[in-house]
Amino acid sequence: MSPRLELSRLSLNQITIDQCSLPEAIEACGRAGLTVIGPWRHKVAEVGVEPAARMIREAGLRVSSLCRGGFFPAADAPGRRAADEDNRRAVEEAATLGTDVLVLVCGPPIGRDVEAARAQILGGIERLVPHAEEQGVRLAIEPLHPMMISERSAIVTLGEANDLAERFDDTRVGVVVDAYHVWWDPRLYEEIARAGRRILGYHVADWLVPTTDRLQGRGMMGTGVIDLKRIRAAVEEAGYDGPIEVEVINRDAWERSVDDIVAEACEAFLAAS
Amino acid sequence: MSPRLELSRLSLNQITIDQCSLPEAIEACGRAGLTVIGPWRHKVAEVGVEPAARMIREAGLRVSSLCRGGFFPAADAPGRRAADEDNRRAVEEAATLGTDVLVLVCGPPIGRDVEAARAQILGGIERLVPHAEEQGVRLAIEPLHPMMISERSAIVTLGEANDLAERFDDTRVGVVVDAYHVWWDPRLYEEIARAGRRILGYHVADWLVPTTDRLQGRGMMGTGVIDLKRIRAAVEEAGYDGPIEVEVINRDAWERSVDDIVAEACEAFLAAS
Repeated sequence: MSPRLELSRLSLNQITIDQCSLPEAIEACGRAGLTVIGPWRHKVAEVGVEPAARMIREAGLRVSSLCRGGFFPAADAPGRRAADEDNRRAVEEAATLGTDVLVLVCGPPIGRDVEAARAQILGGIERLVPHAEEQGVRLAIEPLHPMMISERSAIVTLGEANDLAERFDDTRVGVVVDAYHVWWDPRLYEEIARAGRRILGYHVADWLVPTTDRLQGRGMMGTGVIDLKRIRAAVEEAGYDGPIEVEVINRDAWERSVDDIVAEACEAFLAAS
Repeated sequence: MSPRLELSRLSLNQITIDQCSLPEAIEACGRAGLTVIGPWRHKVAEVGVEPAARMIREAGLRVSSLCRGGFFPAADAPGRRAADEDNRRAVEEAATLGTDVLVLVCGPPIGRDVEAARAQILGGIERLVPHAEEQGVRLAIEPLHPMMISERSAIVTLGEANDLAERFDDTRVGVVVDAYHVWWDPRLYEEIARAGRRILGYHVADWLVPTTDRLQGRGMMGTGVIDLKRIRAAVEEAGYDGPIEVEVINRDAWERSVDDIVAEACEAFLAAS
């Protein structure tokens, strides 16, 4: 069993309180005594990258990662170029925001060819790495649950993310372990150990039974069936001791009081992560 | 590319027309010129096993497999004994119905311990094999999509099903490849090849985008994004040339005309499987 968690390791992934703008999320973190945040790009864009970076800094917050680059597969060359350009901007935004981790949600296949998508993802990462290196940003491939393959990511297992990451220097490309996305995998613990120092982020949420919304139906830690304490122990055993992002994507929560959600997140983080 | 399919290889999995009783499903097969059926136990139970076997035989149908045994994990010893007894009956029902394939949907974990569930599943199969052997019935482990782990099966990859099956003689325990459950897997084709003669059944349906019902939202072949022709080619390359079950679990279809659904299934089978 890993040591008891401290709130200082909690990073509030902004989508947990998606009803907030970035300034509102920063304030909510402040009221709750949180010191780390995981912003999303579309929220950053609403205020501008430089102002966002300043607000975060002035509030005394750190950024654990920027969500997200990726979405590499495209139907044609102009589509690929647009994805490349967007990813280069994402790298620069991460650097401006003061984080060295850009999360990659790699994008769904175009049509039926999953292998072609995987090849395009590899190509996209290869083209992005030099710019990321220049900017001092590491790329963190996040495998998503296989039920999200057609909307979000052709990369659906940690093994596959490790295979991809291992094609690059381990100071440049790594993985995000999100318990919600990988907990079902019979190879989970060996792949966490294999990832080792390539683990650039650890995310938590819980799997509700039943899961009534396939994309936005996650539970707070402790309300579902994921063995979060065991997974955290494995991630820490593999060498990761950075922030843990609470990323509870739940449509119902977005209708509720932000301070209530943040308070629940803190309590669930300490008790059940 | 595999040879063009013939309707003689189509087995109508009964849940595709779940609005029907077994006698009604048998009649629907007859009207459509189908010769193979995949019954479910609760439908067989409604008429009794012996009468069901007689009706199927007298209609000139064959049974590709019986769905389903399994659900091994249990909270306590009485629960495990009840599962064992039910599985022994399932084996006997398969034999009576004239099929030598019993599909195993292995059951969800109890609580958070997925590995304990997997160990209980192995134990349950070990206890069932001698009786199955005596009855001339082979056990076919069906890995289910990881999004169904908490309702249906702790066995969620073909690799894991192969690992389990390989603990037994290949004339006794094998696997079912259901395209809907396994298509997302980066290791799919190597695991199909590995399964080889252990493939005891092949099921088809399609993955709709978006998938609006996590458990009962499958599409007819050709309406989604699964590369069904490639998967069939791999299954046939691995040596399987038996019936192909059309198992389209779709809540909306159950409100429609049975003959329409069966006609669609036949057309989609020939055109897109």
